[in-house]
Amino acid sequence: MTGSHVTSVRVVGTGLVGTSVGLALTGHGIDVTLADPSPSAVALARDLGAGRIDPDAGCDLVVVAAPPDVVADVVAAELAAHPDAVVTDVASVKSLPLQRLHTLGVDLSRYVGGHPLAGRERSGAVAARADLFTGRPWVLTPTAETSPAALEQVRATAQLLGATVSVMDAREHDEAVAIISHVPQVAASLVAARLRTASEQAVGLAGQGVRDVTRIAASDPHLWTQILAGNAGAVARALHALRDDLDAVLAAVDALGARPDDALGARATVAGFVAAGNEGHARIPGKHGSAPTVYVAVPVIVPDRPGELARLLRDVGDAGVNLEDLRIEHSEGRPVGLAEIDVLPAAAQTLVTALRQQGWSVHA
Amino acid sequence: MTGSHVTSVRVVGTGLVGTSVGLALTGHGIDVTLADPSPSAVALARDLGAGRIDPDAGCDLVVVAAPPDVVADVVAAELAAHPDAVVTDVASVKSLPLQRLHTLGVDLSRYVGGHPLAGRERSGAVAARADLFTGRPWVLTPTAETSPAALEQVRATAQLLGATVSVMDAREHDEAVAIISHVPQVAASLVAARLRTASEQAVGLAGQGVRDVTRIAASDPHLWTQILAGNAGAVARALHALRDDLDAVLAAVDALGARPDDALGARATVAGFVAAGNEGHARIPGKHGSAPTVYVAVPVIVPDRPGELARLLRDVGDAGVNLEDLRIEHSEGRPVGLAEIDVLPAAAQTLVTALRQQGWSVHA
Repeated sequence: MTGSHVTSVRVVGTGLVGTSVGLALTGHGIDVTLADPSPSAVALARDLGAGRIDPDAGCDLVVVAAPPDVVADVVAAELAAHPDAVVTDVASVKSLPLQRLHTLGVDLSRYVGGHPLAGRERSGAVAARADLFTGRPWVLTPTAETSPAALEQVRATAQLLGATVSVMDAREHDEAVAIISHVPQVAASLVAARLRTASEQAVGLAGQGVRDVTRIAASDPHLWTQILAGNAGAVARALHALRDDLDAVLAAVDALGARPDDALGARATVAGFVAAGNEGHARIPGKHGSAPTVYVAVPVIVPDRPGELARLLRDVGDAGVNLEDLRIEHSEGRPVGLAEIDVLPAAAQTLVTALRQQGWSVHA
Repeated sequence: MTGSHVTSVRVVGTGLVGTSVGLALTGHGIDVTLADPSPSAVALARDLGAGRIDPDAGCDLVVVAAPPDVVADVVAAELAAHPDAVVTDVASVKSLPLQRLHTLGVDLSRYVGGHPLAGRERSGAVAARADLFTGRPWVLTPTAETSPAALEQVRATAQLLGATVSVMDAREHDEAVAIISHVPQVAASLVAARLRTASEQAVGLAGQGVRDVTRIAASDPHLWTQILAGNAGAVARALHALRDDLDAVLAAVDALGARPDDALGARATVAGFVAAGNEGHARIPGKHGSAPTVYVAVPVIVPDRPGELARLLRDVGDAGVNLEDLRIEHSEGRPVGLAEIDVLPAAAQTLVTALRQQGWSVHA
């Protein structure tokens, strides 16, 4: 162990995250060696420039990028094989692997659990990018046994990759990702599953709302089974709470269905429920992790031809206004789109005036 | 009644939808008169150019744009007051108002239920736009009593406003919007409500997934209480089905929490559930109501400075490639963004090459 500045890193598991770690560290001049149970996978990662293959090379740090199901056993093996190295992992669940390491009786002073929140819907080394972690959260989950030097070494490495490091205990982490990631995934799948038996006419009415709610329902069942199984305790707690809310809404909606004009308590329940959603939604931080900012949306009609959106955004840039966010709204059956440009309130009038001068149909 | 070409229209209710109808019809040279229980609301709509105020004017068509709770009574009053006019409405629920009209014993030959799917999160006349209905679905729900001439008149008017008209019965409509709109709204609120009690650290981990799932959770509780109450039967049926799915997943997750390594049936349940979401998600039509197209996403790093996104999209346009969709991915804590440009698969390589030549960091 050489303190917080690593010079050689061993990456075990060359999927999306492991290969991205290799690419990024290699780019910083660090000697990276690669390992994977699949010889073709490790060769691909090497050919992509993520590192070299040398099973006997020494290392300061081992990054285990194995699936949640096997990560603890791989960590234990690496701790044993590299008695002077710090070992970290990148699995998206933390408590269960830690329990397994305790069961294995491993000395955990050199182990630092980690989770970069940088997955993609695509997987594998071909999807890897050296900047995968840039600006992303990277959670570290040290225990009381973790040596401060080991923690600092992993923290420095994650920061070198551009990540924003935070420290939680494993259970806090798992509760957090259950609410912020795993429950939204389940909800998206639940809503999307209802569409299977909907009529063609019904799905033809789909607008931006249902598209947004169900976007992540397109994710990989195999990966998500591992994640939900690996965080079953925290996911179950959050889902039970969600079901309690659902039961309350459902009872209210049932009451309204039975007696539409005579269910004032039920109306109050529904209104309170939607308001609770408002309140939770407002807690999501804005761009770049800052406090939520209320942007003004400037809607502009955009003909569906190559270059029109570019022309619009060039005109936005020419107006000296920074675009904070952009949504494109699709319409059914007509070749015209609506772009909604989010800007700071102080910039909205400037933008509207400038775009109208350029002939845009602005609906602010 | 003058057949399918209206020359004078009375709009009753000058909120977002009624005022937009007035603006659009006025733009087509039709004589529009406006009415609203609120004198200030109707004056605002008039001043915005949506029509004139003349309670005694005759009309070919009455468009009732009143809230779901009162729409049937207003329709009945308008049918009585204008014995030669066709009457339609724009309420987002259809069965309950129709039941109420039956209860009132009204002759329904001149009534055509309607629902333009063109609401916005913003409301009121100030948010109105003449092109609100352009390219949007507009569902008509005639009954056996509806005269063919009345249906054609309302259809022609909706088409004049640029909408894509489809015809369903009221119950079909309500089942469709329950699945495509009302249940997604409930799910978004359920997920967002879980965020209320999450730790600051947890909400700091929020990524694009939870943002998309919960976007519509920011909607107005009062409006949504009326909608959910007005479609309580269909919403309850869809929510019960969703809860059955949730219970099955929850039982599986509970089993996995209790015996992580010994719950193969539970794993199969979870995997089947995520796969069902894949299947339902795939049924959502693509852009412009066409069959779903699988686009290729081209990810490009975009510095967070005014004009950078415009420069990127100009370069996309210069490459002769039509952008099908665009997502901007926000990162926490770092001033760099990732734009994902969706293009047809045949155009992807052209685009990647062209953007790299312009110096963009493309991660395809």
